[in-house]
Amino acid sequence: MSKVVHGGNIDELSRKYNLNKDNLIDFSANINPMGVHKNIKKAIIDGLDNIERYPDITYYDLKLAISKFEIIDINNLTLGNGAAEVIFNLVRALKPKKVLIPAPTFGEYEEAVLSINGNIEYYYLRESNNWNISEDILKYINNDIDIIFICNPNNPTGNLTNKDLIERIAERALKFNSIIVVDESFLDFVEDNDDYTAVSLLNKYRNIFIIKSMTKFFAIPGIRMGYGISKNKDLLEEIDKACVPWNINIMAEKASIAALLEEEYIKNTIDYVQSEKNFLFQELIKIKNIKVFEPNVNFIMFKTLKEIDLKRIMLKESIIIRSCSNYNGLNNNYYRIAVRTRKENEKLINSLKKIMN
Amino acid sequence: MSKVVHGGNIDELSRKYNLNKDNLIDFSANINPMGVHKNIKKAIIDGLDNIERYPDITYYDLKLAISKFEIIDINNLTLGNGAAEVIFNLVRALKPKKVLIPAPTFGEYEEAVLSINGNIEYYYLRESNNWNISEDILKYINNDIDIIFICNPNNPTGNLTNKDLIERIAERALKFNSIIVVDESFLDFVEDNDDYTAVSLLNKYRNIFIIKSMTKFFAIPGIRMGYGISKNKDLLEEIDKACVPWNINIMAEKASIAALLEEEYIKNTIDYVQSEKNFLFQELIKIKNIKVFEPNVNFIMFKTLKEIDLKRIMLKESIIIRSCSNYNGLNNNYYRIAVRTRKENEKLINSLKKIMN
Repeated sequence: MSKVVHGGNIDELSRKYNLNKDNLIDFSANINPMGVHKNIKKAIIDGLDNIERYPDITYYDLKLAISKFEIIDINNLTLGNGAAEVIFNLVRALKPKKVLIPAPTFGEYEEAVLSINGNIEYYYLRESNNWNISEDILKYINNDIDIIFICNPNNPTGNLTNKDLIERIAERALKFNSIIVVDESFLDFVEDNDDYTAVSLLNKYRNIFIIKSMTKFFAIPGIRMGYGISKNKDLLEEIDKACVPWNINIMAEKASIAALLEEEYIKNTIDYVQSEKNFLFQELIKIKNIKVFEPNVNFIMFKTLKEIDLKRIMLKESIIIRSCSNYNGLNNNYYRIAVRTRKENEKLINSLKKIMN
Repeated sequence: MSKVVHGGNIDELSRKYNLNKDNLIDFSANINPMGVHKNIKKAIIDGLDNIERYPDITYYDLKLAISKFEIIDINNLTLGNGAAEVIFNLVRALKPKKVLIPAPTFGEYEEAVLSINGNIEYYYLRESNNWNISEDILKYINNDIDIIFICNPNNPTGNLTNKDLIERIAERALKFNSIIVVDESFLDFVEDNDDYTAVSLLNKYRNIFIIKSMTKFFAIPGIRMGYGISKNKDLLEEIDKACVPWNINIMAEKASIAALLEEEYIKNTIDYVQSEKNFLFQELIKIKNIKVFEPNVNFIMFKTLKEIDLKRIMLKESIIIRSCSNYNGLNNNYYRIAVRTRKENEKLINSLKKIMN
């Protein structure tokens, strides 16, 4: 397992600081605040007798459910035990000598590349540019770069990259036989996600590989489920070869199929997160001694303008926030919080006010 | 996912031949005939609310449960999403140039090695030697061999390799800085398994890596759970680096912890399988036109002495058996059947009698 420090490590924290984990409010993991849908739990219970059988090694039913949800062909899919496994399998298959990774971004791209002893070039995002990826990233793409990773929206900054720029990156990458990985694990939370997803570019660019996580949107991080989408048949075959058999267990299979059917929950989540994100942002910018970066998604990054171990202090308030100190390109002044329920968001705001004002 | 044809592919078969899978009796997967213990299902239901959280990334509770069961230190463990992932992670970590694999044996060693483009030398088991591994395997171990895989008891032949020979292999492997992998995934089914396990050799031989599957013994193939045991700290660290984070989902974690507590079920399984194995063997040897190989474990290999597509014919009887035609070193005259319940075993015997006599 990875050495990266992640959010959502409530077990470790409660052991370390001897806290009752049931009292902690976890703002460190970017999980849907509406919680898991009851039909997902029902699907697991209904499917319990199936644990005595191997999963269908072809995952036909699960792939069919995803293909309907994404409106893509069933053969354009690869499944992972969490999006993390999709990332690792892709890297294991491509064995890149060198990759381009923006910084700061999700740590598992780096971990996966380091696990096969690949090299990394960083494209540093700048606070002065509001953490946006700009056209100058194109200059970083050359014959030496085998994979470009773009997290869209980006974790932890919350920035969206528009589809035009994604296309220009794909176009340039194609010249050098490079693969562009677009990690859209948080895109389902974005209201106008259809305007941003690279799915519509797949036909034109066989070098695009899209990653999706089901963990965050459906509030099932304990289940682990992610997938990759591409029209590059050779690449999918190589990934298939690098992947262990039966990598999705029966429970994850049943839960995921059930989740994708919940259209109303999906719509309500987008509306609720949008509204709570705006509330949280408006309240956060009133707090002194912090700088808040405008969010596009279900989490918000901010920076403390005075030296303070905010994570530790917030723990005393029974609130877990994500320190961004271990993100390349950030330091211990940066923090990330998830958008949660109104009541929880208010508690966070009140605690932050008390501490920072 | 793997291209190897495995047993237990009931979904594929029922789709292919348009069969009602609920009526099929599956002798092709070597699963505990006592079925899953009710407390495992209970643990999954009781743990359902935890799916909204990430699994504990250190898997402290699960590792503790396994360490108590195996009577080993908690730090000597690596966990896998099925034993298959343990095998793949080991190979990903060691990146062997060349490995030694007996033939016939479990197909995933080969798949894992091929996935990283490693080379394979085969040690062919001989029917004339009753499929036993003999001392002559030592001659195959030299400076070129990075890993030696020993499946004990061996799948599909059912043969046990005694601990003295395992030790001699480990000793010779050590001379050449090679790792010996002992896959004991079926050893828990063997009555006197303490006499065979390589756990007692771990202190002396840091080059031994033991693999265990929980899937078969606890009848939870839908859950996926396996682990590796070694006292080689460097190797475990390399595996850790090659492994995805959160590779065991919450359901598998809860189910496994519950399973390992069921001492009575464990004892009863050994007794029941021993007794049914003997019954099945005694009945099989009465059937004409087949040669049965004496089993040590919860599955039995036999050979048809006339040309017949037995797997297909048995399917018409609603019975799935494992054709061994895709095992290197065997051909389409060889079949493997799991030991199941008395009633099911009798049905198998009656069908086989009808067809073969």
